[in-house]
Amino acid sequence: EEQDLLLAAAYVSDAQYNRNIPFETSPQAIRLYCFYNHWTMQAATYFFICIDLSLALFEEPALFPLPFLATSIVEVLCLTAFLGRLVHFAKVTPQMVFWKDTKNICIMLTIVLTLIDLIVYGSLEAVNIRSVRWSRALRPVFLINFPESRQIRRAFRSIRNTLPDILYVFLLFLFSVLMFSLMALKLFGDRGLKTVEGSPYFTNILDIAFELYVLVTTANSPDVMMPAYDFNGWYSLYFITYIIINTYVFLSVFLAVVYNNYRKHLKNEIRKLAYLKRHKMIEAFNLLKVQVGTEFVVKEAQWRRLAKVVAPDISSSHLELLLRVSDEGQKGHVDKMNFLRLADLLNIQVVTINIKRHPLEAWMPRVYQSSASLLVQRMVRHRVFVWVYDVIILVNAIFIALDERNPFISYAEWLFLSLYIIEILLKLYTYEPRSYFGRRQFWNWFDVLIIIAALVATVANTTIQSARKYSSQQILDIVLILRILRLLRVIVSIERFRVIVTTLINIGPAMLTFGGLVLVVYYVFAIIGMEAFHSKVQFFDPNFTAPDALVCGNPALKDSAFARNRYCKNNFNDLASAFILLMELTVVNHFVLLAGGFALVTHQAAKLYFVGFHIVVVILIVNIFIAFILEAFFVAY
Amino acid sequence: EEQDLLLAAAYVSDAQYNRNIPFETSPQAIRLYCFYNHWTMQAATYFFICIDLSLALFEEPALFPLPFLATSIVEVLCLTAFLGRLVHFAKVTPQMVFWKDTKNICIMLTIVLTLIDLIVYGSLEAVNIRSVRWSRALRPVFLINFPESRQIRRAFRSIRNTLPDILYVFLLFLFSVLMFSLMALKLFGDRGLKTVEGSPYFTNILDIAFELYVLVTTANSPDVMMPAYDFNGWYSLYFITYIIINTYVFLSVFLAVVYNNYRKHLKNEIRKLAYLKRHKMIEAFNLLKVQVGTEFVVKEAQWRRLAKVVAPDISSSHLELLLRVSDEGQKGHVDKMNFLRLADLLNIQVVTINIKRHPLEAWMPRVYQSSASLLVQRMVRHRVFVWVYDVIILVNAIFIALDERNPFISYAEWLFLSLYIIEILLKLYTYEPRSYFGRRQFWNWFDVLIIIAALVATVANTTIQSARKYSSQQILDIVLILRILRLLRVIVSIERFRVIVTTLINIGPAMLTFGGLVLVVYYVFAIIGMEAFHSKVQFFDPNFTAPDALVCGNPALKDSAFARNRYCKNNFNDLASAFILLMELTVVNHFVLLAGGFALVTHQAAKLYFVGFHIVVVILIVNIFIAFILEAFFVAY
Ligand code: NA
Repeated sequence: EEQDLLLAAAYVSDAQYNRNIPFETSPQAIRLYCFYNHWTMQAATYFFICIDLSLALFEEPALFPLPFLATSIVEVLCLTAFLGRLVHFAKVTPQMVFWKDTKNICIMLTIVLTLIDLIVYGSLEAVNIRSVRWSRALRPVFLINFPESRQIRRAFRSIRNTLPDILYVFLLFLFSVLMFSLMALKLFGDRGLKTVEGSPYFTNILDIAFELYVLVTTANSPDVMMPAYDFNGWYSLYFITYIIINTYVFLSVFLAVVYNNYRKHLKNEIRKLAYLKRHKMIEAFNLLKVQVGTEFVVKEAQWRRLAKVVAPDISSSHLELLLRVSDEGQKGHVDKMNFLRLADLLNIQVVTINIKRHPLEAWMPRVYQSSASLLVQRMVRHRVFVWVYDVIILVNAIFIALDERNPFISYAEWLFLSLYIIEILLKLYTYEPRSYFGRRQFWNWFDVLIIIAALVATVANTTIQSARKYSSQQILDIVLILRILRLLRVIVSIERFRVIVTTLINIGPAMLTFGGLVLVVYYVFAIIGMEAFHSKVQFFDPNFTAPDALVCGNPALKDSAFARNRYCKNNFNDLASAFILLMELTVVNHFVLLAGGFALVTHQAAKLYFVGFHIVVVILIVNIFIAFILEAFFVAY
Repeated sequence: EEQDLLLAAAYVSDAQYNRNIPFETSPQAIRLYCFYNHWTMQAATYFFICIDLSLALFEEPALFPLPFLATSIVEVLCLTAFLGRLVHFAKVTPQMVFWKDTKNICIMLTIVLTLIDLIVYGSLEAVNIRSVRWSRALRPVFLINFPESRQIRRAFRSIRNTLPDILYVFLLFLFSVLMFSLMALKLFGDRGLKTVEGSPYFTNILDIAFELYVLVTTANSPDVMMPAYDFNGWYSLYFITYIIINTYVFLSVFLAVVYNNYRKHLKNEIRKLAYLKRHKMIEAFNLLKVQVGTEFVVKEAQWRRLAKVVAPDISSSHLELLLRVSDEGQKGHVDKMNFLRLADLLNIQVVTINIKRHPLEAWMPRVYQSSASLLVQRMVRHRVFVWVYDVIILVNAIFIALDERNPFISYAEWLFLSLYIIEILLKLYTYEPRSYFGRRQFWNWFDVLIIIAALVATVANTTIQSARKYSSQQILDIVLILRILRLLRVIVSIERFRVIVTTLINIGPAMLTFGGLVLVVYYVFAIIGMEAFHSKVQFFDPNFTAPDALVCGNPALKDSAFARNRYCKNNFNDLASAFILLMELTVVNHFVLLAGGFALVTHQAAKLYFVGFHIVVVILIVNIFIAFILEAFFVAY
């Protein structure tokens, strides 16, 4: 009896959180399973994943160098934690299912490979041979393959499903690029033209193909055209045709294919999720059902106990509400159809709006209801009050833009700060505080937090300044950013702006999935890039006048555009730099310059790394991101 | 009676071609209206529009200079033609409707303004004062406002309907850019940082706003970040946040809003068109109906006469087919429901597939049916035949890539040409020629035309070469392009490729609408640009060693990136150059460099022109183009 209730609760909880893990139904296994799903265990797993991923900051090439022994001990610790989690999972799920699941195999394989890599690298290090820590590129496997990362896996599945369709478009696109390359070789190859840098123009088919691939990203427009255009104006037609076909039409087709698959996939996933949810709820129902008359139902007492197990923190008024909804006829039991809705009901956020009296009214009704007090309240509720503060914010913006070394302006900052505090106090005086700070009142929270933070930071800065006669740069920067963020409040006053911003904020959590996706891809590319390109390009402090500083410490960069544009800090010498460089490559601009620089210090084949990154990140992931925003906005509008 | 038929025919014709022009119903007016819609009149209108638009090639600043007198006479001629067309329209349409239609007012106003401008400019020219031919920017009005340009007007309407929604997003976006500018001013303004060019970094809020606006287009990434990034690695977070919010999220939201409106608008337009079409068909029916029993119908004879008037070129078998479809019960009359479908029926292309015998079979059956002949036919129909020719094409591609000065390779070209001709002859031998060259057989036409053109061009080139001992460069270039286009045939063999290409070809005609839209916007911006920037930047032949050649003939460009990158030919000195420059601006890359160059030779305010162009073309028109491709692909897939 008790065991059935626990099992049913596990099913309902799985349905509520869309979990799809088959588990054994023995009482011990169910308890283990609940423990497996407990938030502390999940948090611990993510904690170890974060530690494992961030190890790259401390390993050679390191941002904060630590000895190999230290990082490898931490890594073994993480691997142990992952293995423990996996063993826990193996105890929960049936043996057959466990060994058939590629996710588990992936994790085990990665653990073994990482251990092998650690041992090999450590041994070689001991005899002073430097080798490659290749297993680091596998670390994101842990982020993807634990059952918690359903969302990221779904995004990867979406990409995988898109691949066959996109592959054909991509091949056609490559074919088109090659055709145009051939044409360019024949049209311009024998002309003896020179680029701005004085090198021969379009004489080698591989170089041409690379330049034309880059032209699709527009990163070398119009430079790539100029020699031919200078030679003969008609040749511009070749480039215009190329850009229309390959940049505009093909890139749009890529987006169309990705978006189309994304929508199709989304629909399938939602349908599948709904089916699994229903299936689990039916199993839970079958465990608890009793026959009343001709139909099977769940008794009210049993239903209450179930709800208490699934949602231990539920308030009794909330529970009564759910029961009232589920047992409409007040028959003392819940029928099948209403029972199946329980998982969805539990997911609904119930906002209890109590029209409460203002505490001040209860405390000193005479004063609060006096005509002066009522006037203040009417004033604060009036539209003009909002307008006045919008004007104050705009004046504040102008003051911020002015020179702050002027003492008058620096004092004005205190004036504005007090005006904002007065505004909040007035609002708290007028509106009931608990509903003003309700869960959904995002903008009120934003207001108050920004003001308090600015107040604290300004006071801290003034204290430090008067005590030590100098300002801390970091605190000053933070004060400044907070002061400017305050201006965001102007948005709240304009209805249309609020709608757009609210839509963006609502899709924020789902965007985190993309954050995870991008993190995985960036991490793998960063590790590969760090192994291939680290310390090939050095950054020297601008005040440092080493002879090599101007060529980023590498003579191969002499006279290169990379060194001329002072791109030395765009390198793979540590994880943070690598991530920033990959971000620049995602934005695509000056792609040739960056790829060209790293090709100069290593080998022309290095360009393949950059083209590969472009295909994966810009053609696939950025397009999925756009598809996601399009879909989110269509639903919202 | 006869007049009713004519009027009904006019209604049906309007419904067939989606024309929405109210016209008078007197017999004379109907005849005038039919004449107004005749293709020769429409072609003449477009001819004069083309002449009028292309005048900019001959006017100062001219690609091919002509005296002002010549161009102004041609312009007056064009204006007369437009006026004539308008007068014709006025005679056709009711007086009230004519004067209420803004399209007509626009045309008349533009004619008057152009005449005033011509007179003022001519008089000033006579006393040697150079003024501005501002009315030239109004010329696209004629392209937009004649009733023929329904598609382009629809695209403009689509943009206009999108404007309110996009405006709010754009204001929010501007607000965000300004907030970030303010932050940048405060964070970096006092640091004394320098750009690569040695100028102060982020010290002026207007410059910062421009640079950050450009960063949205990614055209100055990562340069704009480098000084701050070199100073302190953490400042990269500012730029990464900026790029995520403004480049990725906002630009995606722009696309979402444009696409959303485009779909909504498209649906409305289609609904409206369907309503108007039905309305016209009902009017036509009411003119011709007679009562038979309880219902009103159109007699078969009357129906036939109507169809003959609407579609004079219809074949009798086609007419019988239409009648059979419309009069299903063979009752000798067409009922209302079937009559309303006539306009749509006339638009359906009827492909008559006659399984005809091959002419050779009729001519010499013995030979054509001999076992050797049958073997050849089976061979040609076999899949391997296609594969063999795919291999030949690929080998051909390799030969093209090799050095053609090698005589062996130059002879191989003749071999390939003959192989292709043999292929076509074999196919014509096997397949019935009239169905092989059917209307829908795009790829067969493509094959044959490319081969014949290549043959003609190669023969022409060889003739010239042997006669004059030198090759004509233009013909060589054309031969070369044709030779490479031949490789496109590989696509035909792969089913998936053919699907994609066919989709692209099918949306081709609709893309012409975008061509018109882009032409209008480019023309207006080109004329403004030519008036503002002409001869500020000069291009000198690379072999010419004038001292000014390196600064594009303008000392203001000394040490500028514009001159260093040899962008001298990117100028507004004639219409063709201006169009190519605007194309480069559409692609966005090196936007700062181009805008900066023209700001240097005139005034910093010139950057507004470039930003305006970016907003109109990239944010609006390119997004509509992408929306259009997305929609077309969703329908096709
Ligand atoms: Na770019």
